[in-house]
Parts: sequence; structure tokens; C-alpha cells
Amino acid sequence: MQAEIITIGDEILIGQIVDTNSAYIGKALNAIGISVYQITSVQDEKSHILKALAEAEENADIIIITGGLGPTKDDITKHTIAEYFNDTLIRDAQVTENIQRLWRDFVKQPIQQVNLDQALIPSKAKPLMNLVGSAPGMWIEKKDKVFISMPGVPFEMKELMVKEVIPRLKEKYERPYIIHKTLLTYGVGESIIASRIESWENTLPHYIKLAYLPSLGKVRLRLSGIGLDEDILLKEIETQIDTVLPLIKDIFTGFEDEGDLEEVIAKKLTQDNKTLSIAESCTGGQIAQIFTQHAGASAYLKGAIVPYATQSKVNILGVSQALIDKHSVVSAEVAEAMAVQCKKLYATDFAIATTGNAGPEKGDSQAEIGTVFIAFASKNGVISQKLELGNNRLRVINKAVNKALELLSKEIFKN
Amino acid sequence: MQAEIITIGDEILIGQIVDTNSAYIGKALNAIGISVYQITSVQDEKSHILKALAEAEENADIIIITGGLGPTKDDITKHTIAEYFNDTLIRDAQVTENIQRLWRDFVKQPIQQVNLDQALIPSKAKPLMNLVGSAPGMWIEKKDKVFISMPGVPFEMKELMVKEVIPRLKEKYERPYIIHKTLLTYGVGESIIASRIESWENTLPHYIKLAYLPSLGKVRLRLSGIGLDEDILLKEIETQIDTVLPLIKDIFTGFEDEGDLEEVIAKKLTQDNKTLSIAESCTGGQIAQIFTQHAGASAYLKGAIVPYATQSKVNILGVSQALIDKHSVVSAEVAEAMAVQCKKLYATDFAIATTGNAGPEKGDSQAEIGTVFIAFASKNGVISQKLELGNNRLRVINKAVNKALELLSKEIFKN
Repeated sequence: MQAEIITIGDEILIGQIVDTNSAYIGKALNAIGISVYQITSVQDEKSHILKALAEAEENADIIIITGGLGPTKDDITKHTIAEYFNDTLIRDAQVTENIQRLWRDFVKQPIQQVNLDQALIPSKAKPLMNLVGSAPGMWIEKKDKVFISMPGVPFEMKELMVKEVIPRLKEKYERPYIIHKTLLTYGVGESIIASRIESWENTLPHYIKLAYLPSLGKVRLRLSGIGLDEDILLKEIETQIDTVLPLIKDIFTGFEDEGDLEEVIAKKLTQDNKTLSIAESCTGGQIAQIFTQHAGASAYLKGAIVPYATQSKVNILGVSQALIDKHSVVSAEVAEAMAVQCKKLYATDFAIATTGNAGPEKGDSQAEIGTVFIAFASKNGVISQKLELGNNRLRVINKAVNKALELLSKEIFKN
Repeated sequence: MQAEIITIGDEILIGQIVDTNSAYIGKALNAIGISVYQITSVQDEKSHILKALAEAEENADIIIITGGLGPTKDDITKHTIAEYFNDTLIRDAQVTENIQRLWRDFVKQPIQQVNLDQALIPSKAKPLMNLVGSAPGMWIEKKDKVFISMPGVPFEMKELMVKEVIPRLKEKYERPYIIHKTLLTYGVGESIIASRIESWENTLPHYIKLAYLPSLGKVRLRLSGIGLDEDILLKEIETQIDTVLPLIKDIFTGFEDEGDLEEVIAKKLTQDNKTLSIAESCTGGQIAQIFTQHAGASAYLKGAIVPYATQSKVNILGVSQALIDKHSVVSAEVAEAMAVQCKKLYATDFAIATTGNAGPEKGDSQAEIGTVFIAFASKNGVISQKLELGNNRLRVINKAVNKALELLSKEIFKN
């Protein structure tokens, strides 16, 4: 069972937006046993869309199209799909009603003819009701294949995927099971890991694939299995993991499907009824942002301080000026004092702190660009680490955030 | 002059990562007058890559390939390219030297044979030196077409694009000029804008295209022109903008190429020598993160507080408990007090504050999910706005951040 994703829009090809829809759709399809053969991003141009549709029909059973369903002249997907199926557009009563409801309840501006015309769909299409936008999804079957068209606005697409597309695909097709299991490692490069696990990798059955995904000091090892019997497949993957784990036990940090690291931390803190606060200078609010994007953060996160100016480390956080003068603002001592003061200020069980120079220029300290200190405070005291993270600002910030989360995770599972 | 981008890797198709490389490459090519015809993401599978290469050669003059150049078994791009060109791999001395240098200076672990073998490249390829990673880029010409292969690791790809690929493409091809100019609007939907500007849109010359890009209350209008004479093209686009602006002047907020909104704000604050602080509750650190991701933030940003727990709004920020009890923690009064206190605490010219309920559950306040107050304080006093932002947590946070930046921008350009 193969799918192809076609995303339509010049904004993708000129790099004005990053196509995040495809990753969402790919993940959702995989979860129900449908592989994605290819993702193709094409222009808002009729002949190009027609060509992509024809090629996708060759390659795949399920063709998922996003984008180009808006009410304006540059949106040509609907007319092009009608042409592809040698079809005409007819007005759908239920979609019309949905559009009128949206305008009545939310838009509260006069409805335009172009909006009402979004209820025009190919006569061969079954509309998929879009409750959060005026462009309906469309479902068109052709023999044993299905073409699904959705708006490109991510939250409208997601609503349609969850409420319409996935349930219908599950009903229509018998699907194999696809299981991905990703091992997280930290500390050595992919080639060293590869040489360590080579003899095991060579014995993997053909229906289980191994991929190496390196990024910023971490290497993820992804095992992907496909099969008709879920239990057998799961058992086989478990067996393979049991075999490989002893070979990498010193660098293994967990499984990815347990959620991102901040989710693992959040779960642990919530379960243990422990609280956290954050004092982040060079990471500039990103650690707080990572925790607060997830629901339930208020159960454990009391808050954060971003004492960006040196003076605010003294005035607000209460780090001593003498300490800063003695050791410089980018130092283990100051990072530790920040964590201790933050823990006290917010009255939390744990606090994490960062101070460093993300570049591109030296700031209030003589520390080299890329030098970052992270510290962790608990009732057992305070510890810190020095990091050298290169000279690319965004990478320094991202790596410092990753390392702070790792330190935090390691310590809270210890305490 | 057309390019096609092929990104290789199962991790893209299963949705484990979002392909950000294509947008970067698309933007960089556009800037030198090369259009991207199509982006194709394919599996780590030989026959699939071969098929994509053949199709891209049909479609485009320039074929840019990323991914699959690592040292491990799942990386098959190099062998597949050699097969496509009926070529064999040979060891390149300069690449070998580069790999040895990287290991000596940075890796400081024993070099593996698989790493040294990254110096094996197709004999028809010219290596593009990758100074930050062990996989070289490759440049293969075939008649008037060129195939360029780069590693998938974003920062390695970017280094190669900037230092090798773009300069070589500029030298090899005569290119037309492509100019994009994007107008930002706020407040009305795309269909209303379309009906307002319809008569103008109908008279656009064929070499200038208009696109509508709606997102979260904003609609971006992108004019894209292509032509051989840069001056004439620029003048024509300026004329078109002069014609359309009076039709949308009440909703026009600026041009996108002036940078993202936070960059416009940062530039203004830095020029005026003014300072900013942030007290953000429901936005959880994201406003601070948005400013601090850019170099130079310390020139104007003194810092931020994320008083996530209600108690910390009192203890740390100094909002009065009585005020919170009277108006609730999600109220105009508390947002305004947060801004005023933050301005005082950090001793800044301006402060911005957010408080609200991002959901999915009600917190310390009886405010509806999606209710957010934003406030702005300056020497002239404090103002606030009430927002109703729906019930999707991430969208509430993102919209609140956007609205806070808008308020801030409006006010600092006034003050």
C-alpha cells in the first residue's frame, strides 16, 4: 500500500515557506501502515499539476494533494483536478451550508461570491467537510485508487486528516503494519557506531531496515519493520533491540517514541510532583518555550527568567556583582549562582541555568564565542558543565538547549 | 533556467523530519534568477533515486540532490549517482586530506575506514570541498546540464551552497532576474482583498504573478516578476505596487523583505537606542526566544520574565495580589501591571506583557480558553488589548506572539 503526496504552491518552490504538511501526512499514514513512496512539490501551474497527478497515479495507490484550494485566482487545484478526471464542477449543498455557517459564526463580514464558489467541486468527488475553513476536502475514487485533495493551511489539513481522511483510509484498505522504533544515542559519531554494530546489522532480516540519523552530537538509530502480523513484527523488533543494546549501552539515552526529551522530563516531574524553574541567558527563552508549548506545563513549571543584560543577573536574579567581576559573566561560578538563585526565587525543587556567548560577537565577557556554561540546582547542591559549541549563533543556542535538557533529564532521574 | 531539487531519505517520507533544505535551496536559487521547477523527496532506494534523476534531467537544467552521503550502509546516493552516469568511484586526494584534517582538529577519535572512504567519488565528479563535514559535495556536468550532490545535514549543505554551489552556478549560466516583493496585510480575509484589487490584478503583465498567502489573520500578497533586464523589472514591480497600495492602504502593514517583524522592531530599537523587556506568561518564553535568535539582541533587550505560576507574578514581578484577586490573573489590569512592573524591574524604555489561557484546560483563572491580554508600557503609560484566539494551544500561543509583536511595532514607531 503506497501513497504519494503532492504539495502545490509556488511559495514552497521559491522557499518562502517550509512544507511542514508532508511530514505530518507522512507520519499519519505510516501510523496506519501506509508507506509514502514520494513527496512531490509542484508549481501553481495547470500542466505541471496534471503531470504530477499522472505520475503519482503510476506510482501509488493513494494520492494526497494539498494546497491551491483558496478562493483567489492563483488557486487552480480544483479546476485542474476536474480536468484530470474529465469532470465538471457542481455546487454542493452541504458545503454551501458549511461556508454560510462559518461566515455567520466567525467571519462576521459580508460573504463574497468567491467564497460561496468554494462549494463548487468536481461531480465525481465526495466532499470532506472542513469545519474550520471554507475550502472542502475532496475524495475521488478511480478503480482501486483514491485521490484526496485538502487545503494547504496546516491546521485545516490536520483537522481533515484526523476526522475524515485517516478513518476513511482505514475503512477502505487492508494495510500491513509499519513499526518504527528509534534509539537515541549521544557521544560518538555514526561511523563508530556503525563499526560497533556491523555484525548485528548484517544479520537484520530484509523486512527490517536500519537508518542512521546524525544531528548535533546525537545519532538516532531507526529500525523500521513492515509486516502483516503486528505481534510477530513487534516481537522481532524487540529481539533485534535486545541484541543491539549491549553493543551501544554506554551511549544509549532512550527511545524516541517516548516523546521528545522535554516531554519525558515533563512527565517525570509531574509524576513526582516536583517543580522546575529556569534562568536562561544565552538560550534566550528557548528552554521555557520548549516546555510551555506542551499542555500541562503549569503542573511543574513555576517560571523562567531571561536575564539577558548582565545587570539583570544581579538586580533581578540576585547573583553577586563581585562573583561576576571575579569570574566573568560566562563562567561555571555564575551559571551555578544563577541556578541556585533561580531555584530560591521561584521556590522550586530544581532549577536549570545557562550563560554563554552565542556570538557572532563577544559580549560582556571575554569568553570565546560558543562557550556556554549550564548548571543544575537541587536540594543536593549545584553542578555545572562547560561546553564549546562552535561559532554559528543558532547552532550554539540549539545545542546549549539540547545539552541543558540532557543534564536536567539525567539529574531528575537520579534525584 | 530551471532547477529541480531531489531530497533523499526515508526519514523525510515517514515524517520523522521536516525537509527544510529545499526551502533554503529554493530561496538561494531564486535570488540568482534560477527557478525551481519541482521538489521531489524520494526513498533511500536505488531504483527510486535512479528514476528521480532521470525525470529531473528531463525537467530541469540544474539538478540539486541532498542526502544519503553519510558513511553508513543506508547511505547509497554516491553509488547510485555513479551507476546513473555509468561511472566508477575513485579516491580523491584533496577530499582525503580534508577528512584527515577534520579528524585531527575536531573529532579526536580514531578515524575509521568508512570515513576515509567518503573520499571515494565518481570519476566524472568534481569534488566540492566540505570544510565542516566529511561528505564532499559533488558537481557533475552532462552536456549543458549539471548535477550537484550535497550532504543532507543542513549546516553542511548551507556552507556548500554559499561557498561553492552558488558562485559556480553564477559563473556557468546566464540567468534572468527573478524579483519577489511581498506585501503584508492584516485584518481582512483573502477573498475580500481579492475583490478589492480584482481590476488591478486583471491588468498585471504576464511576467508578473500575484499570489495570496493567508495565515492566522494575516494575508501576504506576493508579486513575482521574471525578466532579463533587472531595472525594467524592478521599475515595473514598483509601478504595480504604487497602483495597488491605495486599494489596501488600511490593511497594509509593510513589506516582507524588510525582514520578519521582530527584525524590524530590533532595528528600530537599536537605532533609537531604546531598551525592551518582556513579561510573558501564556506565551511562555517565545517572544524572548524570537528576539534572541538574532545576533545583536543584547543591544536593546535587557531580558524577560516568564512568571508562569500566578504566585511568581506577585513574588518576582511585583504585581499586587489584591489586583489579581479582584480582576483574575487573565485580565487587562493584570497584563498592564505586568508590563509596568517589568519595565520598572528591568529599567527599560518599553515593556510588553502577555497573560492568558492557551488551553487545553482552564488554569488559575476562569477565563475562557483562548482569551489572552497583551499590554505595552512606555513612559507615556500603559495600554492593553483583549484577544480571543480559539482553542488550539499552539495556535493560541503563536497568535498571541504575533499580536504582541504587532502591538509593540505599532507603538514603538509611534513613540
